[in-house]
Amino acid sequence: MRRADVPVRRYRLVIAYDGSKFHGWQKQLPPSGEKIRTVQGDVEDALQRLLGQPVRLRGASRTDSGVHAFGQVAQMDVACPIPVERLHEAMNSRLRDDVDVRSAEIVPKTFDVTQAITKQYRYRIWATAHKPLGIRHMVHHFWWPLDPGRMNDAAARVVGTHDFGGFATAGHGRDSTVRTVHACRVERVSDEELQLVIEGDGFLYNMVRIIAGTLLEIGRGHWEPTRIDEVLASKDRQLAGPTAPAPGLCLQWIKYA
Amino acid sequence: MRRADVPVRRYRLVIAYDGSKFHGWQKQLPPSGEKIRTVQGDVEDALQRLLGQPVRLRGASRTDSGVHAFGQVAQMDVACPIPVERLHEAMNSRLRDDVDVRSAEIVPKTFDVTQAITKQYRYRIWATAHKPLGIRHMVHHFWWPLDPGRMNDAAARVVGTHDFGGFATAGHGRDSTVRTVHACRVERVSDEELQLVIEGDGFLYNMVRIIAGTLLEIGRGHWEPTRIDEVLASKDRQLAGPTAPAPGLCLQWIKYA
Repeated sequence: MRRADVPVRRYRLVIAYDGSKFHGWQKQLPPSGEKIRTVQGDVEDALQRLLGQPVRLRGASRTDSGVHAFGQVAQMDVACPIPVERLHEAMNSRLRDDVDVRSAEIVPKTFDVTQAITKQYRYRIWATAHKPLGIRHMVHHFWWPLDPGRMNDAAARVVGTHDFGGFATAGHGRDSTVRTVHACRVERVSDEELQLVIEGDGFLYNMVRIIAGTLLEIGRGHWEPTRIDEVLASKDRQLAGPTAPAPGLCLQWIKYA
Repeated sequence: MRRADVPVRRYRLVIAYDGSKFHGWQKQLPPSGEKIRTVQGDVEDALQRLLGQPVRLRGASRTDSGVHAFGQVAQMDVACPIPVERLHEAMNSRLRDDVDVRSAEIVPKTFDVTQAITKQYRYRIWATAHKPLGIRHMVHHFWWPLDPGRMNDAAARVVGTHDFGGFATAGHGRDSTVRTVHACRVERVSDEELQLVIEGDGFLYNMVRIIAGTLLEIGRGHWEPTRIDEVLASKDRQLAGPTAPAPGLCLQWIKYA
């Protein structure tokens, strides 16, 4: 098929990455001309080399520097002569080994990547005195002994529709700070590791990391689980815990209607 | 206790490390004066800063560049005023985040770290088209579809007392190439990952990686499982598979009498 015959279609890509070496998802063009590596930038570059034309991606979530994804979702409108079932492999061979396009599919023009119904994040906590070694970029190493029962008592208080203003970094620039969290729990996945699993219709800036930081303070006995209720009622960021470090966080999946 | 009052004792250390950033276990002193990072070098440096005296370690296994350990064992003779139950923590606080001293204990002067009864190695195979991303330094990404049944048929043929000369890199400098392998099997540990588990009284240079490379050729259908018997009978390195890459290999544990 000649390129001129290929219609412009909308594609949905599911992208996994190790965020350790990236300055987050979103492309940045610093005025200095300095090259800053971002996931969006790497994937757009790979597409341009593959298709011979500039391609603009829109991502569902602007993951921060050092944050990982297993199921980031992005859309693009492009005239692509490569069969869709081979597109992810063609892209992967042009991407470095810390980005993996897991799938590509053609979607209706009505699809909007920003209109997710539910997102799941996981926050990995390495909860033992031994060092995490080879996975140290994937987990937050927390030294204090943790009580998962207390953490789950607190996590259950996060579930529901609340004003999460107290769990967001100021200057997030959103009109409303009301969000609905469908699930929030702490799972033991091995002798060494706990995972905070949280699902919701959307998350404010740093919301998952601040909830994680608050649950860690509760889990080590510094605060009671009712601290969650106090932060929700007061919307006072000062009452919540510290923003837990980026490497523990992973955008697990995103669901659409 | 004054240092002069502390007797010299023999210590056994169990050491875990992510070998990615190391030129192997064994200390190297290149004539150029160039600094080469090794696990032994890092641990000896930490001990010298901790104890104010040079300390010489003897390791059980000279793991290669890029090879990992969960249970490397080393011994040292030293007059150490730090209580033995606190020694591993004191060392860890002086080591970078890719080395972890898991335990330290005082052993009789008759203990010899080179006289292991059994060692276990694991070789991690990432057997899917998706990239291993954040654990890419810990696994070997193998693209071809693998049949674990064929690999286990072949692995069972490795077990026993054999001349493993065909599974060793030449120039290993050992008198005998006869070794006893107590266990050899391929386990599925997740949808994506297979692990070769091998235990024996000792291993020749590159022996586990050459066995892994041979099992991979058998698992993808290139050779029959009986290829193992042919390599053992002929002792011909050319009949065995390629040396599988270092990052998949981990020295799991070492047992003593």
